[in-house]
Amino acid sequence: MAAQNMAETFRILVTSDIHLGYMEHDPVRGNDSIVTFEEILSLAREHEVDFILHGGDLFHENKPSRSTLHACFSLLREYCMGDKPVHFEYLSDQSVDFKHCRFPTVNYEDPNFNISIPLFSIHGNHDDPTGHGNLCSLDLLHSAGLVNYFGKATSLDKIQVSPLLLQKGSTKIALYGLGSVRDERLHRMFVKKDVSMLRPKEEQDSWFNVFVLHQNRARHSATSYIPEQFLEDFLDLVVWGHEHECRLNVSPGKVEWNPTQKLFVCQPGSSVATSLSEGEMVPKHVGLLEVKGKDFRMKSIPLKTVRQFYMEDISLAKHINPTHKDAMKKAEDFCVEKIEQFISKAEDEHSGSRRQPTQPLIRLRIDYTGFQPFSSQRLGQKFVDHVANPKTMIHFLRGRVEKIASVKQDPQ
Amino acid sequence: MAAQNMAETFRILVTSDIHLGYMEHDPVRGNDSIVTFEEILSLAREHEVDFILHGGDLFHENKPSRSTLHACFSLLREYCMGDKPVHFEYLSDQSVDFKHCRFPTVNYEDPNFNISIPLFSIHGNHDDPTGHGNLCSLDLLHSAGLVNYFGKATSLDKIQVSPLLLQKGSTKIALYGLGSVRDERLHRMFVKKDVSMLRPKEEQDSWFNVFVLHQNRARHSATSYIPEQFLEDFLDLVVWGHEHECRLNVSPGKVEWNPTQKLFVCQPGSSVATSLSEGEMVPKHVGLLEVKGKDFRMKSIPLKTVRQFYMEDISLAKHINPTHKDAMKKAEDFCVEKIEQFISKAEDEHSGSRRQPTQPLIRLRIDYTGFQPFSSQRLGQKFVDHVANPKTMIHFLRGRVEKIASVKQDPQ
Ligand SMILES: [Mn+2]
Ligand SMILES: [Mn+2]
Ligand SMILES: [Mn+2]
Ligand SMILES: [Mn+2]
Repeated sequence: MAAQNMAETFRILVTSDIHLGYMEHDPVRGNDSIVTFEEILSLAREHEVDFILHGGDLFHENKPSRSTLHACFSLLREYCMGDKPVHFEYLSDQSVDFKHCRFPTVNYEDPNFNISIPLFSIHGNHDDPTGHGNLCSLDLLHSAGLVNYFGKATSLDKIQVSPLLLQKGSTKIALYGLGSVRDERLHRMFVKKDVSMLRPKEEQDSWFNVFVLHQNRARHSATSYIPEQFLEDFLDLVVWGHEHECRLNVSPGKVEWNPTQKLFVCQPGSSVATSLSEGEMVPKHVGLLEVKGKDFRMKSIPLKTVRQFYMEDISLAKHINPTHKDAMKKAEDFCVEKIEQFISKAEDEHSGSRRQPTQPLIRLRIDYTGFQPFSSQRLGQKFVDHVANPKTMIHFLRGRVEKIASVKQDPQ
Repeated sequence: MAAQNMAETFRILVTSDIHLGYMEHDPVRGNDSIVTFEEILSLAREHEVDFILHGGDLFHENKPSRSTLHACFSLLREYCMGDKPVHFEYLSDQSVDFKHCRFPTVNYEDPNFNISIPLFSIHGNHDDPTGHGNLCSLDLLHSAGLVNYFGKATSLDKIQVSPLLLQKGSTKIALYGLGSVRDERLHRMFVKKDVSMLRPKEEQDSWFNVFVLHQNRARHSATSYIPEQFLEDFLDLVVWGHEHECRLNVSPGKVEWNPTQKLFVCQPGSSVATSLSEGEMVPKHVGLLEVKGKDFRMKSIPLKTVRQFYMEDISLAKHINPTHKDAMKKAEDFCVEKIEQFISKAEDEHSGSRRQPTQPLIRLRIDYTGFQPFSSQRLGQKFVDHVANPKTMIHFLRGRVEKIASVKQDPQ
């Protein structure tokens, strides 16, 4: 990009649901979330972004272990501090935007910290404020000057979202954030018109309006999600956290468009699979958002350190005659072969990154109608050194009803 | 002090056992440790010290709550960062001195942090390294650039203490630190000559040698303490953490002198009473250490925010005839009067600091030989609004043997 363009263009790394500390006690998978966080930070550096925007669930646990907290502090210090100057201005009132924080300031303008890449984050449902002082882990990071924690609603009755106003050259971004709120409550508040988005007083139409939230996007029940039609018309782009499926590549090079709402929706997804579900199978990416004036484009960058994950639904009766005298053995052999194929596929498809694990996650969802289930534990033992989740590879289902029930997911 | 002297004189605030988070869930006392930590930091600023030296047990809990951690981060950011330049040089090899840390650097020389008052701390037994990565809370603070965590022994077989070498004008300090080690083990290591103190190669006699440790100083059993004769002759001053009794004022204006060892010992004590014992009754101070060449002097500064604590041993039979028909009532009335006297004394002796609590700690240790114990709970209820520890004011003892047993203390 030409220098002139650079000076007018915001470049933003968009990511979400990093879930630091996920399965931290697992000897094989314990470090996955940290490794990919480091990859994301190094991509931010490599692409010389102006800032990182994170959509919540930075931590998997509300009270992360010391070791996870320390890894996070260390990586932020390593990648987000340094002499690279920050090239955009902060226009709005920091004491309003960060009034929920002990230090109501943005880190890169604080003379006590030398910040090279500011990170802005809302909280998710995994790392929401709780306990004495209603603090969350992002408060620790914010007070240490490593993160800019925004979007914490301080009233339970009405939510007024005040935008962070950022300017680079002639490009102006109004960044709205709303940390995770219980879906039913937020849904009700939207219905009652108790959620309002404040707008800059001057030159309203010149702002590029981004809204980051962390809620259910998929309809779980009538009120336990936020329908896109609740969102205000003036928004240009929504960054949707909480949903773990990466939808940055739904159609290559395009951001999802909601024609009714005239709204683009960017759903970065998680950077570590926290369940063995379809959503987490979609290859994981971060977004590289460029905004110039009111125009934007989003590139997706594949993550190369994410542990590979393969899943297949198998109906045993389609492959093996259940009345055959060796049906059990054949069924087991069939599964072993499938797993070996996936292991081999994982080798072929390995990103080549030294930091991408070599043991993939594998899940076979087996409809064993007409068969006896075999010992998935014994089968798992054969693959202890080759698969990351030998104990949970096989999921037996009988028929369609149970199958649907089985895909009910963990809270993301 | 004249400017010339200032440029040659280290001024160091010496403190220990701050025990952040002590009784944090107590609605009355929960904030005491934090309030006094802030006082200590503001004294450091007021007296324009070169650095703060802390002797371990900065935190009361090995895994401090988020709220306590956040209070600590916030206060350090508020008081120890800023534009005041640091006027002493760091001469030794940081990558050796902090080799146990993820960032083996001293915070005030890191260009990414603007440090006005460096704080150097060893760990205590309350906040020692544990768990995954063998980290402690000081690692979080060190990696956030807020503290310089030193004195962590990395080998279990032999301990080599390498000094931090600091110079201001012509004054040179060799600062040795050793974080808490189980007393029996360290005692054994000293006996086996497995503890060694490295010395600067050049001009050995020109250094002022300070050693900070966090161990039992009082003899608990033959091997569960560190006798002063174990300490090397070349040391000029020992800062002894872990013992909660403030001994900075043992004889006014003088530091304790061990004539056999030719050694000065400075025992700052804790800044919050973590037990209702004699040691914690001694008025709490921090030390203001000035070192010029090989000379030093230590001033003690009284802390004005520490909750007042009064204790008295009472033998009921000395005051009341146990055979009197109203003996029980008289005994209770006697105690009520004592408590009221202490409350009144606390008012008289209040420091005047807005931040010193007005409800004192009171402990009556009552030898009730010949009497029935009355309900200390009912008595406590009368003083709920006037005493910080209404439920634990009265401690009944019978005779001398039990009394000795009762003063067995909590681990400090
Ligand atoms: Mn979530
Ligand atoms: Mn999530
Ligand atoms: Mn201790
Ligand atoms: Mn202590």
